Amino acid sequence: MVLQAIKYSRGQLEILDQLKLPHAEEYDHIYSSTDAWHAIKEMRTRGAPAIAIVAALALAVELTNMKLPSVAEEVKVFIFEKLDYLVTSRPTAVNLADAARKLRKATEESAARQGATGDSVREAYVSASEQMLINDVSDNENIGRHGADWIVKNTTAAKKGPVSMLTHCNTGSLATAGYGTALGVIRSLHVQGNLKHAFCSETRPYNQGSRLTAFELVHDKIPATLVTDSMAAALLRLRGPSENIAGIVVGADRVAANGDTANKIGTYALAILAKHHGVKFLVAAPRTTIDLDTKSGADIVIEERPGIEVTLVKGPRHDGVNLDLAVIETVSIAANGIGVWNPAFDVTPAELIDGIITEVGVVEKDNEGVFHLDKVFEVDGSAIKPSTVGGI
Amino acid sequence: MVLQAIKYSRGQLEILDQLKLPHAEEYDHIYSSTDAWHAIKEMRTRGAPAIAIVAALALAVELTNMKLPSVAEEVKVFIFEKLDYLVTSRPTAVNLADAARKLRKATEESAARQGATGDSVREAYVSASEQMLINDVSDNENIGRHGADWIVKNTTAAKKGPVSMLTHCNTGSLATAGYGTALGVIRSLHVQGNLKHAFCSETRPYNQGSRLTAFELVHDKIPATLVTDSMAAALLRLRGPSENIAGIVVGADRVAANGDTANKIGTYALAILAKHHGVKFLVAAPRTTIDLDTKSGADIVIEERPGIEVTLVKGPRHDGVNLDLAVIETVSIAANGIGVWNPAFDVTPAELIDGIITEVGVVEKDNEGVFHLDKVFEVDGSAIKPSTVGGI
Repeated sequence: MVLQAIKYSRGQLEILDQLKLPHAEEYDHIYSSTDAWHAIKEMRTRGAPAIAIVAALALAVELTNMKLPSVAEEVKVFIFEKLDYLVTSRPTAVNLADAARKLRKATEESAARQGATGDSVREAYVSASEQMLINDVSDNENIGRHGADWIVKNTTAAKKGPVSMLTHCNTGSLATAGYGTALGVIRSLHVQGNLKHAFCSETRPYNQGSRLTAFELVHDKIPATLVTDSMAAALLRLRGPSENIAGIVVGADRVAANGDTANKIGTYALAILAKHHGVKFLVAAPRTTIDLDTKSGADIVIEERPGIEVTLVKGPRHDGVNLDLAVIETVSIAANGIGVWNPAFDVTPAELIDGIITEVGVVEKDNEGVFHLDKVFEVDGSAIKPSTVGGI
Repeated sequence: MVLQAIKYSRGQLEILDQLKLPHAEEYDHIYSSTDAWHAIKEMRTRGAPAIAIVAALALAVELTNMKLPSVAEEVKVFIFEKLDYLVTSRPTAVNLADAARKLRKATEESAARQGATGDSVREAYVSASEQMLINDVSDNENIGRHGADWIVKNTTAAKKGPVSMLTHCNTGSLATAGYGTALGVIRSLHVQGNLKHAFCSETRPYNQGSRLTAFELVHDKIPATLVTDSMAAALLRLRGPSENIAGIVVGADRVAANGDTANKIGTYALAILAKHHGVKFLVAAPRTTIDLDTKSGADIVIEERPGIEVTLVKGPRHDGVNLDLAVIETVSIAANGIGVWNPAFDVTPAELIDGIITEVGVVEKDNEGVFHLDKVFEVDGSAIKPSTVGGI
């Protein structure tokens, strides 16, 4: 059973409280925009795509269950006001603002239609928000399937049979509308019976790997092992042959036009280690992550974050025998006075990337080593030259 | 002022309590073998060379201050008993057993001498133990000097002027009799005015870098910055040119005859990253670490340690504003039920190592890419072919 951080049926929405993860798995009911606003503000839900979907569906639930004005215009105004309010929960979230814009457009068009009623406008909004959830999850499932197929197709003869993969950070159900991107690829391999073992890196300094990815892997009963970031090289060397490790698959924060990929700090090191050990290095990301206006990684500014994210660590208290989930402590793990450099992301050059897995297929480089990412924006990838795309 | 974890003058010994590091710098007086036995047992002193020296000097202090029998034989027996007792504080420590054997031999010889007295046997023991401290520290200082000279000599023209170095784990005063090996090289560069900046990696899972190396660097007022292990690649790429990073220097647990080097987990990854970025990768280790009986890294068994070293983290409690040094807490940073792989060490193949820095000089590979480590065992390195050794 794949972990669902967002559970929705018409008139009902529940979200997994990510503040309690990985040590408790509790769902919160979301009845209204106000509930969603607080859940986003308090970080009970997180991950840019997930936030947008939760906000959109919360308003759908509210509309479904409320006593509705019969006049279309009144319902439209109500929806507009709620969308504006929802966007204030995380003003910097591009996906949230994007989703609000699209939903506003659907609502506007519906209200302008001949014979529109309060009910018909509501139906238009609810359907549009439900479609967003369906599309996001199905995009991720397609990413998973394309990625898994590509990996199986591209494993060398010596590696036939189930393969193992290493992933970094969290790119699963907890960071997306569902299923996940890079972790979706691992899920697909598992469902196909083509996964031997999943390895996840701790992902310092914020430990998304040990906290969130490990939680998802345990939840889904996927055979998995956690390693520190510093163990990846030894893993590939010492256990690569016995575990049949085919490669490393990661997500992306932004993919530039030339394929250079900004992702969680530590990604670039893993790409170098993959190349050194002759295993594949793959980026899994929906097309919305590909930014053709960013020419290359040189145009991406790396955010530097506070040093205390490295020097302090938070988690439930362990008394030597048991975890006390009710007591969350923060401890220091570094010497006082030491300077810290804490870049949030790094950029992996396209030359180290074997394939970029999108919902329409896996883009590979041409014979000159160049990615042609504009092709993925042509109708459903059907215009993509077979030579540059695999798995579709 | 270089950090001294062991402070000794005849009749007086103090050790830095490493259980209180990095948050408190407190010295314990050691008056007797019993004091040393407890300090070793309780891990207040650590690091194989340091343990041996503390044990040896503790007995020297006890002998210096006690009312001594006048009969040589009686003093000899007393010393033998105390040495046997000291070895039981850490029966697996090779250096400790080695030191006890050498001190026993010096005592035996002294007691067998014509006209030996209690005083003369005591003097022989005390001198021998003091010489151990002197030799260990001077070996490290020589490693530091040879390493620093080699780095300055081998920096490319584009990198003239002070250089920056990255180091891993703790190889400083806290792990040795004093000064340190890899950290000794950084200390030497600093003293020479040839160090721009020191970078230390956190060194998961036990954080020796963020706790101990960072503490030493802050103590010695060496300009320094901590990074997580996952940031090393981004550091070399993004800050390599501006910081003039010349390379990475690490210690060793064992160097095989062919130069393959077992060291703290994460070392192998750093060597690959150094090669990818075209900077030097150096191993600093006294000749006692070179084991010609181990043909290559393939003969080195990697110890796998408990998973809780990865999933649990310990440190003083931080209440959001201040550290409370009196309250040490342990917190969990991983999902329950996840499997963990926790190798303590990895092996870096000789091909990735540019030089092995010993107290008699820096061994480089010959034109066929082969280290000739047997040469360092010829009289003080004077027989080492210039082509294979730099810096002496």
